[in-house]
Amino acid sequence: MSQVNIKPLADRVLIEPAAAETQTASGLFIPDNAKEKPQKGTVVAVGNGTKDEPLTVKVGDTVIYGKYSGTELNLDGSDYLIMREADILAIV
Amino acid sequence: MSQVNIKPLADRVLIEPAAAETQTASGLFIPDNAKEKPQKGTVVAVGNGTKDEPLTVKVGDTVIYGKYSGTELNLDGSDYLIMREADILAIV
Amino acid sequence: MSQVNIKPLADRVLIEPAAAETQTASGLFIPDNAKEKPQKGTVVAVGNGTKDEPLTVKVGDTVIYGKYSGTELNLDGSDYLIMREADILAIV
Amino acid sequence: MSQVNIKPLADRVLIEPAAAETQTASGLFIPDNAKEKPQKGTVVAVGNGTKDEPLTVKVGDTVIYGKYSGTELNLDGSDYLIMREADILAIV
Amino acid sequence: MSQVNIKPLADRVLIEPAAAETQTASGLFIPDNAKEKPQKGTVVAVGNGTKDEPLTVKVGDTVIYGKYSGTELNLDGSDYLIMREADILAIV
Amino acid sequence: MSQVNIKPLADRVLIEPAAAETQTASGLFIPDNAKEKPQKGTVVAVGNGTKDEPLTVKVGDTVIYGKYSGTELNLDGSDYLIMREADILAIV
Amino acid sequence: MSQVNIKPLADRVLIEPAAAETQTASGLFIPDNAKEKPQKGTVVAVGNGTKDEPLTVKVGDTVIYGKYSGTELNLDGSDYLIMREADILAIV
Repeated sequence: MSQVNIKPLADRVLIEPAAAETQTASGLFIPDNAKEKPQKGTVVAVGNGTKDEPLTVKVGDTVIYGKYSGTELNLDGSDYLIMREADILAIV
Repeated sequence: MSQVNIKPLADRVLIEPAAAETQTASGLFIPDNAKEKPQKGTVVAVGNGTKDEPLTVKVGDTVIYGKYSGTELNLDGSDYLIMREADILAIV
Repeated sequence: MSQVNIKPLADRVLIEPAAAETQTASGLFIPDNAKEKPQKGTVVAVGNGTKDEPLTVKVGDTVIYGKYSGTELNLDGSDYLIMREADILAIV
Repeated sequence: MSQVNIKPLADRVLIEPAAAETQTASGLFIPDNAKEKPQKGTVVAVGNGTKDEPLTVKVGDTVIYGKYSGTELNLDGSDYLIMREADILAIV
Repeated sequence: MSQVNIKPLADRVLIEPAAAETQTASGLFIPDNAKEKPQKGTVVAVGNGTKDEPLTVKVGDTVIYGKYSGTELNLDGSDYLIMREADILAIV
Repeated sequence: MSQVNIKPLADRVLIEPAAAETQTASGLFIPDNAKEKPQKGTVVAVGNGTKDEPLTVKVGDTVIYGKYSGTELNLDGSDYLIMREADILAIV
Repeated sequence: MSQVNIKPLADRVLIEPAAAETQTASGLFIPDNAKEKPQKGTVVAVGNGTKDEPLTVKVGDTVIYGKYSGTELNLDGSDYLIMREADILAIV
């Protein structure tokens, strides 16, 4: 899990997406543009929540989220997603 | 019913869809792409609900839901649907 | 009225649509694809309502609803509609 | 005013539209498909209102409503409109 | 100001639009289809308001409203507009 | 600042837009149809606000607003904009 | 950080966008129209917040925001963005 110096606002959560699989179950390598965007990642920073929406997820949780959720951010050369906790489906 | 290690957030429910029928009532086999997507499934995990929406369904309930409800998830090779309880129509 | 083993969730109601008329007033038989979808039916199961929306209709009520209201469900070979009580226009 | 055996739900009102004028002011007869749909009618049944919206109109009131308001219903061979009271503009 | 026998419902207001100018400042007469629809009129009837929206305008006020606000009504041969008070911009 | 005899309703504010610049910084005159619509103006009248939205701006304030905010009004030959205070971005 | 004489209204925040990078990591200069619009900037003025939304960010904070957030403003020859605090994703 990366260390980041960033504080999401309100009910937002910063997620480091899991690396996309580069090999199929049968051993074939997947070219870069055919890899499916992962829907799983690790929470690396959380906001303070809001009066109405205290946060449930914690830094370090592995979470599942919808395919088109969140805003992509590049911080220090790494790609992250920042989204509202309401866009997170489940903790695994 | 499958065992899954996943905790849906808030008012979300994880459902294992019932297998689509592979044979018609009169005994004809249905090719894969003609099978109607089932609208029935078993609840395998539930969230904690929200202050405004405590959950009604329980793990093990057989539920009916709308054709296009929920987000498809693949966990350990099995397909699930995760949806808000408000998308569940009835318990059978 | 059919007996069904189903519990609609929250403010939902299960309706058995009235059979479409198969004959016009003047005695002509109506071919199947020209029959107008009925907007009248019998309530066969009701949910528990919600804190904000206690239910008004009861099992056995004949109700009128909008042409495109509800979700079609097939249970044990019969067709039903499941809809929110707010989609029911009147009791006759 | 017709007698109807129907109970609108909640804040709904059943209206018997006024007959469209069949003759212009200057005495010309208007063919059926050129008649403008009337926006005036008589209230023939009202719901119980809701906690938030007690009803203002009463059975027998002549009301004005928007051109495309309400759902058309045919009861015992007569045409009615059923609409929420909020779609009624004024009492005349 | 016309006398009308009509009671707008809730937060609605009946307005008699000011006559469109038929002559330009320089004295040219404006053909009927080039006249700009006026956005000014006189309040001729008001509803009782709602619990949340007591009315501010009074019968006799000259008001300004948006170009496409309200529903056109013809009462006894005169054209009126009926709109919610929230569609009135200002009193002049 | 013009004197106007108009009372905006509720949370609305009447603004006299600043004159568009007719000359560029380098001294070129700008033809009329190329002038950018100003986003700055002077508050000339304010409503009483609402229970939920007391007004912050005062008559005489210079304010900045979005390019397409408000409704254009012509009063006594001058052009004004009337908009809700929520469409005003800042006081300068 | 620039000094500006402007008071954003309510929950709005004035941001001075960070200068777009003019050189790639490998030393190539980026032509003006190929520079990516920065999503990072410095807060230069804040509103008073609202009863429901007290502000979290302070003047001097470096913030990250969505690509299409806010309204562009030119004040004294410099470009700024004014947006609601809810459009700010995080403080870095």
